[in-house]
Amino acid sequence: MQINWLDKIAWNEQGLVPAIAQDVETGKILMLAWMNREALQLTVQHKRAVYWSRSRTKLWFKGEESGQIQHIKDIRLDCDNDVILLSVEQTGVACHTGRHNCFFQQLQDEQWVTVEPVLKDPATLYSN
Amino acid sequence: MQINWLDKIAWNEQGLVPAIAQDVETGKILMLAWMNREALQLTVQHKRAVYWSRSRTKLWFKGEESGQIQHIKDIRLDCDNDVILLSVEQTGVACHTGRHNCFFQQLQDEQWVTVEPVLKDPATLYSN
Repeated sequence: MQINWLDKIAWNEQGLVPAIAQDVETGKILMLAWMNREALQLTVQHKRAVYWSRSRTKLWFKGEESGQIQHIKDIRLDCDNDVILLSVEQTGVACHTGRHNCFFQQLQDEQWVTVEPVLKDPATLYSN
Repeated sequence: MQINWLDKIAWNEQGLVPAIAQDVETGKILMLAWMNREALQLTVQHKRAVYWSRSRTKLWFKGEESGQIQHIKDIRLDCDNDVILLSVEQTGVACHTGRHNCFFQQLQDEQWVTVEPVLKDPATLYSN
């Protein structure tokens, strides 16, 4: 008997897995967010990233408010079945700070230094 | 007063953060593992990836047994201060299965299909 592809995933105690979003063109890591079963199912169905917001405790249709959508090009699962890797085509910027990606703090001599510019005013991303 | 760079990190309830390892040359994602405060401190100190093994509940000096070391080239922190991104120079293969990286299962028509070859016999990685 074939198991459902969603049952293969080793969901954590909260029913979540981390999902890494990588830019399909540049290979840059955009962000890491979390998914529950429904979020992953919706992601596959709509071919757009849908996460589970742990802070708002609800489904997070990435780009729904900001317009910064992630179109899914490829989905991978790791050897332990507990991490998802998404290859995505990112509309605009991935980070809520208006930066290209969320990993803009670089460790330099025991200090975190911001090394990526703000490309979009965050106020314009969440104006509605 | 300047806070310690380790105090900026939003460790989870278990005192851990996820750390993504990315190949500095190819941009490929190698793996995701977890770090506690000591693991990250040792990583910076030795310029080699040190993780916290959740299954073995101890520090995991990546490559100590297998020889598959990760030399650290860059360390980033995300906007929420709760995900680490490592750029690494990977010796050999990253995955314990002997594959280049851990994300070798691709979702194809609701099935996870293995799409990366085994490059090293896992038995030779952990023979001692």
